[in-house]
Amino acid sequence: MDVAALAGVSAGTASKALNGTGQLRAETRERVRRAAEQLGFTPDPLGRGLSSGRSYTVGLITTDSFGRFSIPVMLGAENALGAGEMSVLLCDSRDDPLREQHYLRTLLARRVDGIIVTGRRTDPRPRLAAPVPVVYAFTPSQDPRDTSLVADQAGGATAAVQHVLDLGRRRVAHVTGPADHHATQVRRAAVERTAGGALVGPVLHGDWSERWGRLAADLLLRRHPDVDAVTCGSDQIARGVCDGLRDAGRRVPQDVAVVGFDDWDVIALASRPPLTTVNLGLEALGRRAGELLLEAVAGDPSPGTTTMPTRLVVRESTVAV
Amino acid sequence: MDVAALAGVSAGTASKALNGTGQLRAETRERVRRAAEQLGFTPDPLGRGLSSGRSYTVGLITTDSFGRFSIPVMLGAENALGAGEMSVLLCDSRDDPLREQHYLRTLLARRVDGIIVTGRRTDPRPRLAAPVPVVYAFTPSQDPRDTSLVADQAGGATAAVQHVLDLGRRRVAHVTGPADHHATQVRRAAVERTAGGALVGPVLHGDWSERWGRLAADLLLRRHPDVDAVTCGSDQIARGVCDGLRDAGRRVPQDVAVVGFDDWDVIALASRPPLTTVNLGLEALGRRAGELLLEAVAGDPSPGTTTMPTRLVVRESTVAV
Repeated sequence: MDVAALAGVSAGTASKALNGTGQLRAETRERVRRAAEQLGFTPDPLGRGLSSGRSYTVGLITTDSFGRFSIPVMLGAENALGAGEMSVLLCDSRDDPLREQHYLRTLLARRVDGIIVTGRRTDPRPRLAAPVPVVYAFTPSQDPRDTSLVADQAGGATAAVQHVLDLGRRRVAHVTGPADHHATQVRRAAVERTAGGALVGPVLHGDWSERWGRLAADLLLRRHPDVDAVTCGSDQIARGVCDGLRDAGRRVPQDVAVVGFDDWDVIALASRPPLTTVNLGLEALGRRAGELLLEAVAGDPSPGTTTMPTRLVVRESTVAV
Repeated sequence: MDVAALAGVSAGTASKALNGTGQLRAETRERVRRAAEQLGFTPDPLGRGLSSGRSYTVGLITTDSFGRFSIPVMLGAENALGAGEMSVLLCDSRDDPLREQHYLRTLLARRVDGIIVTGRRTDPRPRLAAPVPVVYAFTPSQDPRDTSLVADQAGGATAAVQHVLDLGRRRVAHVTGPADHHATQVRRAAVERTAGGALVGPVLHGDWSERWGRLAADLLLRRHPDVDAVTCGSDQIARGVCDGLRDAGRRVPQDVAVVGFDDWDVIALASRPPLTTVNLGLEALGRRAGELLLEAVAGDPSPGTTTMPTRLVVRESTVAV
């Protein structure tokens, strides 16, 4: 019998009550606390581990050395896992399958209760063969029966294009990253669908850098001097596009509106002007991954892929102040 | 008797041999392997933990939510700790002393062998009252008897100024961060010492942003239209200074040489032109922190503060191509 069952609440509610997080009625919190006490639940993780067969430890495997995307996911997961109620063992596989196998063995030898897998890419990845629950965050599993959480990139790209159309722009270009990246393809398809006849083609593919954005602005003005909006595959590209347009004497947003993607504050806020962009909601995604892992560890798994919302953040690169 | 003693090598050498890292003779590596075998050393961490009284787990407490400074330190530490030979339990205290105390209790309840503490600031911080070895990386302890590793910020600032003096610049300004930050003070003192009569004052203090760099460039040109070099407190400030100077019609580096600080690739390489800057050597600092912690856990502590080298990286913001 576990605490949640005894208190008559879900595992997620029990976790919130014990961690002092979330919005719960005082009575619920108290009921969970009494149930925990009755079951000899103690804040000593080793003591608990011995009595419950659980280690109160989860592994977090990231493929991208704690970069731009995995860090907010990790922060969100850590919030959900309750700031020490569950401890997080960190593994950086650096995109190396052998290193990942090594880490998986290490985590299992330490009897982790579950594993969260994250990374930089949104291309589905091979599943991890583990005898404990696994939740894939941002980078989904190739197996649709696994529990994966992905950001709604298509929704974000659609909102970006709809925003510039709403502003009356009718000559919309798309400048983005490498054509073989999943993120590029999903966003591009949504842009093409939403812009329709307003899209001035072809879509420009390059790397995920400001330098590419500057070059692309130059190319774009040669091909389509009447372009009045550019949606970009990343904030770095969008910042470069803004600089390139300004160097060519175009005003952003009066002559050309520019939209980024990612809402990476270091880039989006320093850009001239600050970027309208799509926030990927990574921290919320990581938090949900932590919650789903807790539920799966408690015997209540959620197979399948969940798409988490993204949102457009409007700043001066599309609306003049 | 431990493996290192039986093999007749230092704890650091034994660790390298067992982790397959470092530069060791094959004979040394084999001697350590035999000693490990003889002592029943097994790759199962729980088995080992039970027999040795060690958990083969270390805690890493960061105060800055895995940011620009703690990530490379963490990567370096993880390298030294041997990719799973020692596992790393991650704690993000978010600059909150209560949260830090909570994490410390959690780590100790999990019987960690040692703790690495890191953060964003270089101001000395209160020591952690822990019964296991602690190494302070980048952010030193206030207690000089603790084991702290700091980056040679003064050396970096000196090299930056010497570089522009070597290029023949004689009107050097300094634009930096908040006056009450330790990092600002140490770098500023080194700049003043090295520049001497070439310093055009006063030093300009603002926040650590590109926006401040752009404003500072404007201020600077009004006060000192003949300025021919600007050393900055960060890459973000330096990038803003470059943009501000260019907007005012000055060429970088022909008219004004600009030097950053940090070597943060996202900023330094995207800057126009790419920034000459001071690399803080954070990954090497983290690696050394991991090594010192392993040695301390093995009974060979290194009390005191070690200053790790920084180095000037020359790019186009000081030398025209």
